[in-house]
Amino acid sequence: MSEALAIFWNGEPVAQIPALSRGLQYGDGVFRTMLMLDGTVIAAEAQLAKLVADAAALGLQAPALDRLHADLASAAAFGHATIKLLTAEADRLLIIHPPPAAGSAPVVEGIAAIRSPVTMAAQPLLAGIKHLNRLEQVLASRDWPNGIDEALLGDDRGQPVCATRANLFWVRNAVLHTPSLDRCGVAGVTRSRVLALAEAAGIECRIGSQPWSALMAADEAFLTGSLIGIWPLRAIDSHCYHGARPITRRLQGLLGHPSNVVPLTVR
Amino acid sequence: MSEALAIFWNGEPVAQIPALSRGLQYGDGVFRTMLMLDGTVIAAEAQLAKLVADAAALGLQAPALDRLHADLASAAAFGHATIKLLTAEADRLLIIHPPPAAGSAPVVEGIAAIRSPVTMAAQPLLAGIKHLNRLEQVLASRDWPNGIDEALLGDDRGQPVCATRANLFWVRNAVLHTPSLDRCGVAGVTRSRVLALAEAAGIECRIGSQPWSALMAADEAFLTGSLIGIWPLRAIDSHCYHGARPITRRLQGLLGHPSNVVPLTVR
Repeated sequence: MSEALAIFWNGEPVAQIPALSRGLQYGDGVFRTMLMLDGTVIAAEAQLAKLVADAAALGLQAPALDRLHADLASAAAFGHATIKLLTAEADRLLIIHPPPAAGSAPVVEGIAAIRSPVTMAAQPLLAGIKHLNRLEQVLASRDWPNGIDEALLGDDRGQPVCATRANLFWVRNAVLHTPSLDRCGVAGVTRSRVLALAEAAGIECRIGSQPWSALMAADEAFLTGSLIGIWPLRAIDSHCYHGARPITRRLQGLLGHPSNVVPLTVR
Repeated sequence: MSEALAIFWNGEPVAQIPALSRGLQYGDGVFRTMLMLDGTVIAAEAQLAKLVADAAALGLQAPALDRLHADLASAAAFGHATIKLLTAEADRLLIIHPPPAAGSAPVVEGIAAIRSPVTMAAQPLLAGIKHLNRLEQVLASRDWPNGIDEALLGDDRGQPVCATRANLFWVRNAVLHTPSLDRCGVAGVTRSRVLALAEAAGIECRIGSQPWSALMAADEAFLTGSLIGIWPLRAIDSHCYHGARPITRRLQGLLGHPSNVVPLTVR
């Protein structure tokens, strides 16, 4: 990722932080990654609520919500930016990066992904939490062939779970599917928003684990994330998705994520 | 743990470190914990070799060995100390704590442990490596009843693997057993030293996963670690080990760890 525009530690601009932290030594902390446009963080309330919930799930003392809002307010002067907010031991680290680079292809044509050789370990005590133990994602983010924008990870039962930095959805016979995240994976805020929008729009939604073959047999497939909104999947390894993607397009419209409207992409 | 006596970042004494690190954000790093007595780190060569090997296993650029030796040399002035050496992105963080507190009971009588409710996830890609993704150990270190000094973790197949900060051994019919660490767990330097000493002494050793019932049926059981040397287990939950512990005593003598000779214990 590009160099940080600014870093705040407990609300103060810094370049350094205390050397001793349970975040570094054990990964005992949680974080969120968010997109800010014109000083407004997308889905800020949901993001901060999930940060607090994840901290509680680890038994951590979460920072007070007004402090977290103050952090986002202090980022507002940067206008368009990628915001990472991390908390460990009730300390807050706010990292401000430039927004994702422009480019429109993924929004319409979709991206190509590989199936990662990394299998996610099943740990129900940590599943769904966006904590700082991210070595599986680190390993799965390596050695992508040219033209590949994401890697999909499966679990120890041979079922797809998520991408390295995104949640996974597919559509089959007009039903929207996404893997359950009760054994591994990270439950993203955009995943929740897409599920809520789909239900409100009368699209049948099923949350549950299924084999890779179900994903491959889908009519449409896409990834969700706070920076990317909804990215259609046009290929997984040598398998290509064809067709009009009516439900993907509809959900992109309902979500209204600026990365799916303004030509913005991430890499 | 007690307050640090000193902290060095890439060889320089510091109180703070750069705010952005893959160690904090992803746990993408490795570490060792070592005991130093009179300025000499126990098994220093093996510890640094394992640090470099673990870094390589994660695909990290390990610091040059002479830099790591220089770190230990800079710690020597503290005489007796607990040393933690952590590396991420080829940076080195050296943390010097006071040595473990004195107390002789665990060395002879042994300690009492519980079976942790935390089951370790199976991730062969990370098994054995002492990396910075330690949330399972964090969760398993909580809520110990009074009088309990360690918690034993099992894997998803119902087999004991290790303790939160130590490796696990047991003896049955004069054969020494320790769990294999190819699916989860951390391969400690003291574990390797004890296995080598036992083999050299003609004690039959078997590395392999077995059910909890095998551990409970053992004649002797003990934990190993760089700070503790060999700690006999006198109880696991309500199960007590009785008897003379001849092989445990013999291995304590062969290892010659100062914590098992000088009255030192850790907690």
